[in-house]
Formats: sequence, structure tokens, C-alpha cells
Amino acid sequence: QAICGKVKREKMKYVFLVFFMNLLPQYAGKSLRRDDSYPKTFEDIKNEIAGYTDIAKAIIDLAVHGKAQNRSYERLAVFADTIGPRLSGSKNLDAAIKYMFSALQEDGLENVHLEPVKVPHWERGEEFAMMLEPRNHSIAILGLGSSVATPPEGITAEVIVVASFDELHKRAQEAKGKIVVYNEPFINYGETVRYRSQGAVEAAKVGAVASLIRSIASFSIYSPHTGWQNYQPDVPQIPTACISVEDAEMMSRMSFRGTKIVVHLKMGAKTYPDSPSFNTVAEIVGSKYPEQIVLVSGHLDSWDVGQGAMDDGGGAFISWEALSLIKDLGLRPKRTLRLVLWTAEEQGGIGAEQYYQLHKVN
Amino acid sequence: QAICGKVKREKMKYVFLVFFMNLLPQYAGKSLRRDDSYPKTFEDIKNEIAGYTDIAKAIIDLAVHGKAQNRSYERLAVFADTIGPRLSGSKNLDAAIKYMFSALQEDGLENVHLEPVKVPHWERGEEFAMMLEPRNHSIAILGLGSSVATPPEGITAEVIVVASFDELHKRAQEAKGKIVVYNEPFINYGETVRYRSQGAVEAAKVGAVASLIRSIASFSIYSPHTGWQNYQPDVPQIPTACISVEDAEMMSRMSFRGTKIVVHLKMGAKTYPDSPSFNTVAEIVGSKYPEQIVLVSGHLDSWDVGQGAMDDGGGAFISWEALSLIKDLGLRPKRTLRLVLWTAEEQGGIGAEQYYQLHKVN
Repeated sequence: QAICGKVKREKMKYVFLVFFMNLLPQYAGKSLRRDDSYPKTFEDIKNEIAGYTDIAKAIIDLAVHGKAQNRSYERLAVFADTIGPRLSGSKNLDAAIKYMFSALQEDGLENVHLEPVKVPHWERGEEFAMMLEPRNHSIAILGLGSSVATPPEGITAEVIVVASFDELHKRAQEAKGKIVVYNEPFINYGETVRYRSQGAVEAAKVGAVASLIRSIASFSIYSPHTGWQNYQPDVPQIPTACISVEDAEMMSRMSFRGTKIVVHLKMGAKTYPDSPSFNTVAEIVGSKYPEQIVLVSGHLDSWDVGQGAMDDGGGAFISWEALSLIKDLGLRPKRTLRLVLWTAEEQGGIGAEQYYQLHKVN
Repeated sequence: QAICGKVKREKMKYVFLVFFMNLLPQYAGKSLRRDDSYPKTFEDIKNEIAGYTDIAKAIIDLAVHGKAQNRSYERLAVFADTIGPRLSGSKNLDAAIKYMFSALQEDGLENVHLEPVKVPHWERGEEFAMMLEPRNHSIAILGLGSSVATPPEGITAEVIVVASFDELHKRAQEAKGKIVVYNEPFINYGETVRYRSQGAVEAAKVGAVASLIRSIASFSIYSPHTGWQNYQPDVPQIPTACISVEDAEMMSRMSFRGTKIVVHLKMGAKTYPDSPSFNTVAEIVGSKYPEQIVLVSGHLDSWDVGQGAMDDGGGAFISWEALSLIKDLGLRPKRTLRLVLWTAEEQGGIGAEQYYQLHKVN
């Protein structure tokens, strides 16, 4: 259920667009509300938009040439450099939420508050993998979020390399007691990511003892990806990690030549009880329809590797910037602009899901 | 003195071109030899080349469509997958030389032999770096070839970040007792690589205790580069490693904000006495001018991280392929085609230098 970063950003762009278009419908002549009570036509809307030309220009000028030039980047750099990675359940994420709560207040935004959410608390621990046959080779791995650990002594097993779930199912007899290596081709993130989210479950169903998944990426250098993965009830939980594209390809070539491959895998991940956390909220209250909400958002949590500057520091901070720009220009929109900085997105959009359940009535 | 990989490949392409052009001069009407005893004009040469059209076509057909299709890639894949990384002085490099000696004999090439070379033997050992202030952050490092180790307990020191040697010299007073972090901008490999090769010496001259160098690359993800570096007589030898572009940029931002940075660095590198090694040679002896040598080459050694498939497996194996193609077609060139697979190129072209000293008379 991990939300794809790209899809998420696409959604956010859409929200952003809607924001600047002041909640306009997308189709000419169609009405905005489902009950058809909204009388505006596309022509009305075009005219309304045209009325905002000067305001739009002022916002753009402030962001591109004015005192807000590079502001969002600088804010993000200080935040990411100071806090670092912000995994769900970690002290760093707590620090990030506190930091943003203060920063949004200092920025003069309204109704700055925190909404409690219980979030998963998984820690990577020590992890490594070593190819023992046909030769010693250190395999770079990154355990997947929610993965169980290996036993303390690790797992040493022969490898079976497959290119797809179909191949795994056809060769199910061979997989028992082995480590399944998925060398699925990279088509695109949305399509290929199912090997990461379901790889362990499918491998466990045919009796494998662990699964190693080619990173969902076009290349790796020496940096496998991580991400969330999902166990299923009644299917044994086996350790699972991503490996580099290059190592997956190499094991695939070796396997194709009939070479026996043996890998030693050790992972020390732990899952703790869910932790208290928060969605972080700030607003500019609307002058005419304050109960109507234009929502802009990003998520404060990140993975524990890297700094989460791109995913999703950038998304969070341009969302904040949208409100800052409006405030700096002394504008008061008709509808309430609400910034929400989600928690625990990487674990499957936990913060956003709770927000939806709490607020769906309005 | 490490030869730049790209420059090297440029040179190799040139050698390759010369090979196919049958040692032709590059300038119209100019003679080939320095003593002007060679009477051919550009017109003569054009006609001579035209006479080889069918042969060139046969070579291209064999390589692109014939039984040699993908052969060089397949040979390289088996070699790299089987041997792995091949650092100067390592058992893997010995294994690679033995492997190629046999492969060239089995390929039916002539005068397959090894020419002894003494090569540097440096081993990386365990190494890591951790930022302690302003926060804990694991810094990915790769020690540079020939670097000394830190003391067993490591080095813990404040960081000074500079963007250039000029800045280092201007701020020399501040550098004493510190770890110099070079955050030099990436211009191009040839220009920027001097920070890797001379960074430790320049830092030591102003009293620094270690140097960390932004990788000579446009980006790093989490993979710093390595490479050879040079100490100088009468300058203290301090440990030196590359860091990722991203960590260098972060420390530069922190430093710019006046944030104190403290890093703990531990490196266990060792330098052993020079080891025996070999340049690996094979030929197709010329029919008319056997004493005139057309040389094609690549190097068998690589760094200890990665597999040396690109640098310089590819160069070595396309050079071998050039001879294989000629042999497969039953062609006998007028001049001797000689393949040389260098040893210890990454340590400053040691094998090639010795070959030059031994063979410069002919």
C-alpha cells in the first residue's frame, strides 16, 4: 500500500493547480458539484480566472524575483541538513514535526496545530549479504520496510533467479528452501513496484526462505532502493531486501549459465509497537467560504537512508511556500487554504488515511 | 599520475582507428615518418584504403551479424562475473591474468606470453566516517589508492570546507589540525581530478590531519569514487578519501551558515611491498613487416569496488576481439597486430610504463 512517490507528486501538482484555479471544474459547461447546484459555466469560469491575472503575476514575481526568491530551497536545505532522515516512529520525525510546528507559527500562518496519528515503528538494524558461491562478492542490500529479521546467525541458501511472478510460479518446485532473486525488468515505477511490495509473499507461498528484489530503478551504481512491503495473513513472513540492478543482472547471467549461487543474508530489522505521531496543519482562513478547504500537502516523514530532501521535503516545502506567498502579499482568499504535512506516508499513507477518515464528512 | 579512464579510452579509440586505417598518417600530403623517408601522399593512401573495402565489410559483418555477434560482450560478462574486481597486487588480478593467458591461447592467437612487472600492492581495509556535530550522520567514503591509514582509534577533528586550492591557501591558518573537505565544483574529469590526486598533499602542507574530497563526478547517490593519489617527499602523509557530492555540498552549506562540523574518520588501509605481476601479450604476426607493430590494448586490473567491466574490461575485450575477428576470417595482415593487456594501470599506468621502457627502441 506504499504510495508511489511519483504518483503522489502528480496528485500534489494537481492539487496545486486546483489551488491556483480557485477550485474550478475541469470540463467546459459541466457544473462543479455532484448535485448540479453550481450554476457556473466554463465561460463564467474563464472570465473569473482572467480577473486574477494581476494577483497571479504578483505571486509569480514574489516567488521568482522578489524576496521569496530561493526561499523554499533555503528553508528545505536548513531543515534537511539539521534534521536528517525522518523514518516513521523515529526521534528524527518527532524533531521534524516540532521544527515545522514552530516554523509555521513563526511564519505567521493561522490555526497551526497537530493532529495525532498512530504510526508504524520499524527499524532497519544491521544488514548485509555476501555471495559465497561461485565466489565471494559483497552484495549491497537495503531491507524493505516491515521486513522481519533473519535468525541471528543469518540465512545461507542457494539462489533461484526469476524474471517474473509467472516464472516463479512455473518453477515453484525449485524454489523451496531457496532465496528467490527477482530480476524483473524495469518497465516503470507504477508497474514494476509490485515486485517490491509483493515479492516476499509470493516467494514465501512457494516455500522460499528469503527474497531479494532488483531495485525498482533503471540503474543502481551501488545503491539499492528501499520501500514498504506487505505481508499477508496466513503466509509465512520471510526477510526481504532490495539489491542493485547490477547484482540482480549478474546473478541472472550466472544462473542462465548453470552456475550454482549461494548467498548468506543477515538482517537485524525490528518492528516495535505503533508510535504516537502527528499530521502538522496550518491555514490561511478564507474570507467568504472559510468552511471550504483548498488543501495543499506533502509528507514530513522519509526513509532512513538519504535525507528525504526530494521525497518529500520538496513537496512539503513548496506546499508551505504556497501559503507563505499568499500571506506575504497580504492576500485573503475566499476559501480556506490549508497546509497539511502528513506523517508516515512511506508506510502506506497512514497520516493521510487517518486525516481522510476524520475529515471526510467536510 | 593515475591515467584518466576517459582519456585512456579516447587514446584507445585512436589506436583502434589507426589499426583499421593500417597505420595511415592523419594529414593530407604529409609523410608518415619523421625523417620524411615515406613517400606516400594522401592520394596514395586514399586509394590504398579503398582497396580494403571488401575486407572491412567482412570484418564488420562478422562482428555485427555473424558468429562473433555479441561475442565480446559475452566473453566480458563471463570474465567479470567469474573473476570480479582485480586490484593491483591482489589474487584476483593474478587469476585474471592466468584466465586471459589461457583464453588467448585457446583463441588460437600467436606468441601468447606474459611480461613481468612489479606492481603496487595497496589494500583498502575497513573504513568509515561519521559526522558527530552538528548531528550524527554516516558519511559514505571510499579511501583513495595509496592512502595511509588513520591511527587505530581513528581521527576525530573539526572540518574546514573549501571550494578550491586557492581558498585553502588563503585560509591556511584555519586548516591546522582540521580535516579539509574539498567541495570543488565538477568541471570535467581531466580538470577536476587534481583535487583527488593532490588534495591530501595540499591539505597536509597547511597542517591538516586528513582530507575528504568530493567525488570527481556530477552526482553520487550514495557511491563515492575512488582513484589513485600521490604523496610527495617531505610532506606528511595524511589519510584521504572521497565522499559523495551530496555530503560535500551539505557540509559546505553547514559551514557557510557558521555551523561547527566535527567528523570521526577511520581507515585501515595498508601498503605492502610491490608484487610480481604481468602484462599479457598476444599477436597475429605480420606477413610483410612483422617487426612493425600495430598495438591494441586495454588494462586487466581494476579497482576493488565494482567489477571493472567498464574500466577497463570493455577496453581490454574489444582489443582482444579485434584480433579474434582478423583470425576468424583467416586474414594475415602485413604488419604484426599485438594485443597488450596492461597490469596496474589504475596505480599510474605501471604496466604500460614498463612496456614502454622495455620496448621503446623498437
